Amino acid sequence: MLYVVGLGLADEKDITVRGLEAVRSCGRVFLEAYTSILLCDTARLSAFYGVEVTVADRELVESGSDEILRGAGTGNVAFLVVGDPFGATTHTDLIIRARELGIAVEVIHNASIMNAIGACGLQLYNFGQCVSLVFFTETWKPASFYDRVRENCGVGLHTLMLLDIKVKEQSIENMARGRLIYEPPRYMTVSTAAQQMLEIAALKRDESEEPCYDESTWAIGVGRIGATDQRIVAATLGELVDIDVGPPLHSLVLLGSRVHPLELEYMKHYAVNKDAVQALIDEKDK
Amino acid sequence: MLYVVGLGLADEKDITVRGLEAVRSCGRVFLEAYTSILLCDTARLSAFYGVEVTVADRELVESGSDEILRGAGTGNVAFLVVGDPFGATTHTDLIIRARELGIAVEVIHNASIMNAIGACGLQLYNFGQCVSLVFFTETWKPASFYDRVRENCGVGLHTLMLLDIKVKEQSIENMARGRLIYEPPRYMTVSTAAQQMLEIAALKRDESEEPCYDESTWAIGVGRIGATDQRIVAATLGELVDIDVGPPLHSLVLLGSRVHPLELEYMKHYAVNKDAVQALIDEKDK
Repeated sequence: MLYVVGLGLADEKDITVRGLEAVRSCGRVFLEAYTSILLCDTARLSAFYGVEVTVADRELVESGSDEILRGAGTGNVAFLVVGDPFGATTHTDLIIRARELGIAVEVIHNASIMNAIGACGLQLYNFGQCVSLVFFTETWKPASFYDRVRENCGVGLHTLMLLDIKVKEQSIENMARGRLIYEPPRYMTVSTAAQQMLEIAALKRDESEEPCYDESTWAIGVGRIGATDQRIVAATLGELVDIDVGPPLHSLVLLGSRVHPLELEYMKHYAVNKDAVQALIDEKDK
Repeated sequence: MLYVVGLGLADEKDITVRGLEAVRSCGRVFLEAYTSILLCDTARLSAFYGVEVTVADRELVESGSDEILRGAGTGNVAFLVVGDPFGATTHTDLIIRARELGIAVEVIHNASIMNAIGACGLQLYNFGQCVSLVFFTETWKPASFYDRVRENCGVGLHTLMLLDIKVKEQSIENMARGRLIYEPPRYMTVSTAAQQMLEIAALKRDESEEPCYDESTWAIGVGRIGATDQRIVAATLGELVDIDVGPPLHSLVLLGSRVHPLELEYMKHYAVNKDAVQALIDEKDK
């Protein structure tokens, strides 16, 4: 049996009871740790689960699925995923491969940012498609995310922005020289995300297109959702550039125009400027 | 402390380890059981948690929040929610009320249909807004859901349809006579959902509007997602009218035109007609 187990958001105790029983029944346990990270280290997982957890990097997951699946036909193998197992495409690949090999698969779900973002007070059914934002470089500033944000804005929906993480990346120089030296991990902050989004809005304005958001658009920055030290800050996109929501991981929600007064009422609790949110509520209630 | 604890999707073991520890520390434990249901009975929850679980109906949650919160200032109270705590508006109301009373609140997240629907193989970032579908009656066939589906279709996104459940409802006659007699619970099936959707499509056609979906549109019916007996069936909306995906709860996903070949590849596993899905993949790959 291959168990694909969601670990939830924060630490070793966010696994479900069903998930924990499954993991403890496994001879081999892999942790996918490149599309997201848990907020505690792997040793703590191994100690709590009572089994050795092997970190699986992108190469192992994408090219070494048969190595992961070895023994899953006769014994149990667990593949642990931060959040819910269906957050990233590569995990469906592993399941498809297991099926090809005739290995039974059981998926154990858990919370992920896709539903836990409700903690900011905005209703999940008022969100449009979710959008990824990658780190800009000097020479590469992909603006394709903007088109999707515009689609959501067009119908007044909120947008959850998933922010880039860079784990086990090589510098171009090290890659060219074939040196397996990795850069320190980088996690995009809410501040960087807001900056990049405003950079693209400015670009649109230069091209004489009215951008679908600007410095004055309301947004919510969140840090470490689901952990005891989670932070939620509601402010304008312009203000968020200068706001630190603490240690990673971060996400950002851009508010849609269809926002309901009850959502604003809840959001007010997290607002830098509560009077400004109250003014929005009064405007909506008119 | 008020703990608001997500129970996940299926049974007593879907609670997280953190959630279980919280519940076991509580003197009073309430279960919200009218916006969704767990697939096992309350006695099993009480036995597993080792604490008496009281079922909270809509009336208690919406008007009796102070009764639920009684004692949460000095001891611990748990409010259990099927899925994740932020699935329904009324739970944010309870949190707002707790804050007003100066009661500390901790939310413990879990899987919900909003992220577990990824199990059907469609990528979560290709979903637009989520849409609720209520039971039609002879005289009341609200079509407002259609406008939201059309917004998603307009940009090629998938739509998760949440299907109505009727728990502890009175007949009009019993309500009029003030008799507290409740109808047996009803859960909308995938078949009924497909029927109702096609009824509205026909109505649009009568009004000379080309509907955004029809009998030939691909959809995925799911039953008891997250349970060991979950069922996932991919077929056209017309075919789903005659397909039974087993005991409740059900949900339905309408496929968007932007669907990726890899999503179809995964979906093929669940298709009634695998050749038809392969033809779609070949078409996309051209």
